[in-house]
Amino acid sequence: MAHRRRDNRRSRIRHAATAPHWLRIKNPYPPIAQFTEDEIEAIHVTSLELLRDKGIRVLSAEARALYAAAGAEVNQDTLMVRFDPGMLLDAVAQAPASFLMHGRSPDRWFEVGGNHLVFATVGGPPHYSDLEGGRRAGTLDTFKDLLRLAQTYDVLHLTTPMVEPQDIPIHVRHLHMTQAVVALTDKPTFIYSRGREAVSDALNILRISLGLSPSDFEERVYCYTVVNANSPLQLDELMCAGIIDFAKARQAMILTPFTLAGAMAPITIPGALAQQNAEALAGIALSQIVRPGAPVVYGGFTSNVDMKSGAPAFGTPEYVKAAFASGQLARRYQLPYRTSNVNASNAPDAQSAYESQMACWGAIMGGCNILLHGAGWLEGGLTASLEKFIIDVEMLQMFASLMEPVECNTDTLAKAAFDEIEPGGHFFGTQHTLQRYENAFYTPLLSDWSNFETWKEKGSLDATQRANLIARDALRNFIPPALDAARDEEINAFIRERTAAGGAQLTA
Amino acid sequence: MAHRRRDNRRSRIRHAATAPHWLRIKNPYPPIAQFTEDEIEAIHVTSLELLRDKGIRVLSAEARALYAAAGAEVNQDTLMVRFDPGMLLDAVAQAPASFLMHGRSPDRWFEVGGNHLVFATVGGPPHYSDLEGGRRAGTLDTFKDLLRLAQTYDVLHLTTPMVEPQDIPIHVRHLHMTQAVVALTDKPTFIYSRGREAVSDALNILRISLGLSPSDFEERVYCYTVVNANSPLQLDELMCAGIIDFAKARQAMILTPFTLAGAMAPITIPGALAQQNAEALAGIALSQIVRPGAPVVYGGFTSNVDMKSGAPAFGTPEYVKAAFASGQLARRYQLPYRTSNVNASNAPDAQSAYESQMACWGAIMGGCNILLHGAGWLEGGLTASLEKFIIDVEMLQMFASLMEPVECNTDTLAKAAFDEIEPGGHFFGTQHTLQRYENAFYTPLLSDWSNFETWKEKGSLDATQRANLIARDALRNFIPPALDAARDEEINAFIRERTAAGGAQLTA
Repeated sequence: MAHRRRDNRRSRIRHAATAPHWLRIKNPYPPIAQFTEDEIEAIHVTSLELLRDKGIRVLSAEARALYAAAGAEVNQDTLMVRFDPGMLLDAVAQAPASFLMHGRSPDRWFEVGGNHLVFATVGGPPHYSDLEGGRRAGTLDTFKDLLRLAQTYDVLHLTTPMVEPQDIPIHVRHLHMTQAVVALTDKPTFIYSRGREAVSDALNILRISLGLSPSDFEERVYCYTVVNANSPLQLDELMCAGIIDFAKARQAMILTPFTLAGAMAPITIPGALAQQNAEALAGIALSQIVRPGAPVVYGGFTSNVDMKSGAPAFGTPEYVKAAFASGQLARRYQLPYRTSNVNASNAPDAQSAYESQMACWGAIMGGCNILLHGAGWLEGGLTASLEKFIIDVEMLQMFASLMEPVECNTDTLAKAAFDEIEPGGHFFGTQHTLQRYENAFYTPLLSDWSNFETWKEKGSLDATQRANLIARDALRNFIPPALDAARDEEINAFIRERTAAGGAQLTA
Repeated sequence: MAHRRRDNRRSRIRHAATAPHWLRIKNPYPPIAQFTEDEIEAIHVTSLELLRDKGIRVLSAEARALYAAAGAEVNQDTLMVRFDPGMLLDAVAQAPASFLMHGRSPDRWFEVGGNHLVFATVGGPPHYSDLEGGRRAGTLDTFKDLLRLAQTYDVLHLTTPMVEPQDIPIHVRHLHMTQAVVALTDKPTFIYSRGREAVSDALNILRISLGLSPSDFEERVYCYTVVNANSPLQLDELMCAGIIDFAKARQAMILTPFTLAGAMAPITIPGALAQQNAEALAGIALSQIVRPGAPVVYGGFTSNVDMKSGAPAFGTPEYVKAAFASGQLARRYQLPYRTSNVNASNAPDAQSAYESQMACWGAIMGGCNILLHGAGWLEGGLTASLEKFIIDVEMLQMFASLMEPVECNTDTLAKAAFDEIEPGGHFFGTQHTLQRYENAFYTPLLSDWSNFETWKEKGSLDATQRANLIARDALRNFIPPALDAARDEEINAFIRERTAAGGAQLTA
């Protein structure tokens, strides 16, 4: 009996990794508020006054012209763009409160907005690390391994540029990255705003992988980019081009000011949030000026620096408060809200776990819709860690399970079960238990609940060591999603052609 | 300048460990609800029906007599006690909604109840572990080391029997444990309900340390015990004696059923909660029958077992849901609420950190008033870990900092700061920053935010290794709190006398 049970459980663990109910997670808890409505209004008003009186410096002539045509006041000497609050809010109000995103497989769709919650992998680190090789420059091979893991776990909805493949020349890097994405995953993905040619190339590869014409591609949202303001109060050429290109292609963009309190933002949380809000609204307005209704997400990334060293800190109490408050601000404009699973640890250790947990609780209980950097982020975002990826998947699966409501009815109140037991007895053998034990509780991927003696016999492996083994096992057993051979060949031809033409110029 | 700043910061870290504002923490966030009010009412009604129709087995004749005298129906053959719901709720309603607890130092007081939050150390493990010696039987020396750490950090409000000193004979163990507690700490403390003589001895030692007469001792709450039901639906001799003795002495007690869903409780969360509620209310009623107004706390400890192995699991999604719901139940009766910081990991690793974080968020956002096992718990409560203790102190300090409200006003909205900077510039040197940088953000005890190169130069120590060094440093620098020499001698004399008399019989 014990053996039969163990075998059942093992097959269920495999299944759990691709549990279909995690494709569309709804958060049943009302979001936690950090500030009163009046205080949120004060932050809102301060950000509008900032944009009206000081404005934001816009380095792109095309964006300045778009802003000016929409009624903003542009100073061509200082490059400052100033906004009438009414005009700004009218533009922001064009953005949809929610939208659908789609992957290549028909079941890979989900909603962004409302109380829907989606998880994305880590984006952007230059370094990769694992227990075998330590920390080193990211490569295309390590990028591919992380893509395979991203595809393996259904709790991850969106992929990202998980590590920078530094072994690929920069002018063709976007070609090989996007090819790897569509070869190894079928989930909606991220595309860097690294210049118009690179964006166009990547969108083309993605479009070919989906077998769509350019006009059909615009009908649905298949990918997204992240636009970071050059805080404080500046938008550069590349970022403006990203907003314009993604709005035109009707793909999603996340406007995320990088507001570290005490460095690129005021040292006080309300001040940092006022700046975040001003920068986010200015960018969102541009997207709606280009294409009213373009899918856009309010990004919050306010944290604090260590005032001793200037180093950014993540998953701090201040980070959590800012995450709660940013959700309030996003909902103030009826926009989907993005925040992150972040930490400042240099190792996939206890610090990385508790800082990540703080960040995740701030995010999820703050009502976030897209949790970016959900799996693999280490070292303040400078490293993608193989082991942290698995630790994070476990944590995200736990959150996904937490989001599942508990039914409270005659069956679950279990009065019948009490008739089966004696005081001081146990419920293991009751009908009530036997009917439910297979799926009663969350089954962990990484957590080891064996007793000390069993754990010791198995080698006394800590969670980080076990995470490494789980990742290696997943990589060995990886099966890539189907990709039509003709589309694959078309992508290869496209890349040959673009490479022969010299790749992409990395300018706006 | 950099050096001056670093020195300032170092002295502030020391200070942070005894930050007076952490003596009295108030939780500003409204508690998260797991169930609707109707569902909570259904759990309440189910538990009342259980106590009315089935009842609870009470192994103590004295307790049965007290219940009978108060109007409960006692079956002397089955030892089952059944309750009229009105009589039960009338008794429970006598319990205070909040009370004060006091330590030996005048500033060591705090409130239990309302939105007040206090943290206690780990209680009860038989084993102790540290990186140097691994896992081994607890001793009086290791108990003393953990007491020294409990005294060191002001974020810890209550002490506990942190590890079982197995090198001390059982009949005099309570004498030496309580002596160590009053010698090394001045915080309110825990006393085991391990028999009437042992309780009386421990209360006497504590009373002498405070320099109080027996009647003065009853005027304030200086200590507490935990009464676990022998779930399901049974109260044994020792537990009943503990309730009776602590109510008589007007010291606090926490009634905590140990309801592991799938083992000693139904496999469904609502069923397990109905049982928890029934057992808690039965015990609380006894305390109020003995002494109306006796300080009592509603304890929630519902978690689930691994249905594969029967091993208890902690910090699971189910644990969090039960913690949210238990807070709702405690507030249903206007009682203070206790829950725990728990995990099932065998090592002070990432798993221990993320499971603990899940448990803490469930507890704190569930509105808990006393977080038991706050620092040091490992291995499902079988081991007290030196390193986990420090990891937990860091996490509790982060939560304490999170509980501090953020002021949102003209100063913190920082409009003046924006006048000092250029777009794309930074806020490091602004007056707004310079006036605030000393105390702007939480300063970590354990987290290392240095960059990778600096961290590597310092030896690439992970959080667990650093926690060990921090603990050793705290132990080296420990200064015990003042204890009047005459009281100290009186305690020694008391212990000599009680030892000569053969110590305590460990029966009710």
